[in-house]
Amino acid sequence: MGANRRFPLVFTLASLVALGALLTRPALAADSTVDPVVPVLLSLSIVLGAAKVAGWLSTRLGQPAVLGELIAGIVVGNLWIVGFYDLDWMRDDPTLSVLAELGIIVLLFEVGLESTVDRMRRVGASAFLVALIGVITPFALGWAAGAWLLPGSSPYVHAFLGAVLTATSVGITARVLKDLDATRSIEAQIILGAAVIDDVLGLVILAVVSGVIIAADQGGQGISLVEIAGISAKALGFLGASMLLGLLLSRRLFRIAARVRIRGILLTSALIFCFLFSYLAALADLAPVVGAFAAGLLLEPSHFDRFDERREHSLESLLHPISTFLVPVFFVLTGLRVDLRTLGEPGVLGLAAVLTAAAWIGKQACSLGILQRGVDRLTVGLGMVPRGEVGLIFANIGATMTIGGERVITPATYAAVVIMVIATTLVTPPALQWSLGRKRSPTPVT
Amino acid sequence: MGANRRFPLVFTLASLVALGALLTRPALAADSTVDPVVPVLLSLSIVLGAAKVAGWLSTRLGQPAVLGELIAGIVVGNLWIVGFYDLDWMRDDPTLSVLAELGIIVLLFEVGLESTVDRMRRVGASAFLVALIGVITPFALGWAAGAWLLPGSSPYVHAFLGAVLTATSVGITARVLKDLDATRSIEAQIILGAAVIDDVLGLVILAVVSGVIIAADQGGQGISLVEIAGISAKALGFLGASMLLGLLLSRRLFRIAARVRIRGILLTSALIFCFLFSYLAALADLAPVVGAFAAGLLLEPSHFDRFDERREHSLESLLHPISTFLVPVFFVLTGLRVDLRTLGEPGVLGLAAVLTAAAWIGKQACSLGILQRGVDRLTVGLGMVPRGEVGLIFANIGATMTIGGERVITPATYAAVVIMVIATTLVTPPALQWSLGRKRSPTPVT
Repeated sequence: MGANRRFPLVFTLASLVALGALLTRPALAADSTVDPVVPVLLSLSIVLGAAKVAGWLSTRLGQPAVLGELIAGIVVGNLWIVGFYDLDWMRDDPTLSVLAELGIIVLLFEVGLESTVDRMRRVGASAFLVALIGVITPFALGWAAGAWLLPGSSPYVHAFLGAVLTATSVGITARVLKDLDATRSIEAQIILGAAVIDDVLGLVILAVVSGVIIAADQGGQGISLVEIAGISAKALGFLGASMLLGLLLSRRLFRIAARVRIRGILLTSALIFCFLFSYLAALADLAPVVGAFAAGLLLEPSHFDRFDERREHSLESLLHPISTFLVPVFFVLTGLRVDLRTLGEPGVLGLAAVLTAAAWIGKQACSLGILQRGVDRLTVGLGMVPRGEVGLIFANIGATMTIGGERVITPATYAAVVIMVIATTLVTPPALQWSLGRKRSPTPVT
Repeated sequence: MGANRRFPLVFTLASLVALGALLTRPALAADSTVDPVVPVLLSLSIVLGAAKVAGWLSTRLGQPAVLGELIAGIVVGNLWIVGFYDLDWMRDDPTLSVLAELGIIVLLFEVGLESTVDRMRRVGASAFLVALIGVITPFALGWAAGAWLLPGSSPYVHAFLGAVLTATSVGITARVLKDLDATRSIEAQIILGAAVIDDVLGLVILAVVSGVIIAADQGGQGISLVEIAGISAKALGFLGASMLLGLLLSRRLFRIAARVRIRGILLTSALIFCFLFSYLAALADLAPVVGAFAAGLLLEPSHFDRFDERREHSLESLLHPISTFLVPVFFVLTGLRVDLRTLGEPGVLGLAAVLTAAAWIGKQACSLGILQRGVDRLTVGLGMVPRGEVGLIFANIGATMTIGGERVITPATYAAVVIMVIATTLVTPPALQWSLGRKRSPTPVT
């Protein structure tokens, strides 16, 4: 591309930076009497602008847009390198964080809409095995990595490191699948089903390992089988009961909603359905996105036949502007929370490299659980790799626990976990795009 | 309608209440470790559900949907009457409040898009006179009302009461005009232009009155003419400079943005433009909605000719789902913040009635400022009536100031102001709908 074509980009970037530098200073002087929407207006502008410019550059380089969004976030979040600290508040802004979560909830709802309970059931056994192997292998490998590189620490610490590696963060994979219009492929169905089951299994493992560590530290009884059964029953009960109720009631509920003849009722009913399922999932200690995905799975296009608005717009086209607005907020904020300072801590990089390898191999192994023939096992394995924020949540819990006066997750271990999360998250979009591109036509679910 | 037709509504309402009662209890037990999105998911479901059911009932009764949304908010916000306090946290939830503000910002941006700088300029003189009369008359009437009903208070208190009455809240009017598809009428243009100017004038009056009171109380110098000029210059400077810059640069900026060929760039560029203008307005101490309206005013459909997506969707159709999601949050939350307990305080109702009359007459007088012939003066006067949250912001400032040990705005006066705000806000939607309906075809701007 010629210099005159490059100009607008340089101009846009320069304007963004200049505007950012100019605008952010007064926000810092803002006291508590300032309308809370004011800093959000600025941060949304920066996040959306950075997402689009970086996403575009990323697609021009043949990479998925989400990779650009993540890197844009990392750049904005690490401007301390050039002595700029004025945007640091964005990292912990509670409102921005809620907007980001609403974004990923809407994305998983959209992805769920593109699938059906029936299609999911047909890959159920494979998804279950994929999830199970995808939890056991990284757990064992993480434990082994801990025992090898942290020989002085208690075995509980090694077990906890294994637990951290079990988590799967489905957001990145869902986004790449959606951008490539591959959510209806059998590989996508297996990945999404397995990610949901993984969330339940991860919850149980975390409860067991933390329970055992707290008991060992305080000399208590450990976690009882009854408690483990209770946690599992609560999570599985949510999934089972809500899917059953949803199957039985959703069509009727949407028929009732269709009688409310007012503008926007189709979109609003769908959003309420999505938000309530996400809320119920959170009550069962599952990730809200699991509920959003289940909500999308339950809804079929035929549910909306009676809506007047249906004639003008599909639900997907109504949701699209909302996800255009909110989804990039999630991915930029994910990047923004990456603190590159962790890279520099001594002894961290070795552990990080081993953990990343363990995370990678552990999830590749899970493709052995696929029962169907003709499924691209590499794609499924790659789709399960990203750990995202789920791994960090586990690590944060570990950081608050001690065993014999020693922190279960020390700052150095935490830094290694962060690097593992970055590595698995950043590599997945290009790897998945490449892997899906190899196979010209994704196998449909038969 | 027969009993079998009424059933779905009763069923929906009952389900909503039951679900609400069931779901809200666990949220209360939530500690700080709970993901902050969780309570937001619940409150959004309640707000959106209540908005649509009440909006539909309202339209069936021939009233604007926004009246139903306001009343739905008042009902949900005053469930203490039946001993239900579990939703009280929604009133002060910061995230819900930011979502509501983003809603009203998007609404004013949409309304601004339906107008042009040129059309606004043609009604400029009328809008200025309407704003000026609409500030002077309520100020005088409010002062007189204070002098009459609060004879024991200092004249400064009376003056402050006048200042409280000057504010115009454009949200309600904008919403009614948009729902009735009347934003392009000359009446709408005058109301919207006047509301923007009103915001500047209100800011100056508030600064002057508070400055004088603080000086009188602390024996200082009062506010100087230089300071008044500074405040006015800052606000007018923002409006003038941003409009000028916008006129000169917006076409070019959107041409550059159009070169970023990535999904969602049209909507995202428009949102960034809207958010940045709202932010700049806030920096000039103006309401963010003034900036959003100005941003919409500056953008013309021809700005978007080069966007690929333009071929599929207009910007308006892309914004519509976002406003369907967020706008009702604003109006329900406005209702939710109405505490009916204020109605019961002794001596309040008399002052409230007089203030409401003063607010009403004061804004009706402003239609005298219209220079064009054939304009429906009653509609313009009615459109300027609602005080909304702007009046409350003024009253809140007064509540923090004292003069000679006496609070400028006592709790009783504050309650009367709240009732005045409720009265002017609730009456406007039906009055405006009636007034616009009288004239079959709104006069276009010529």
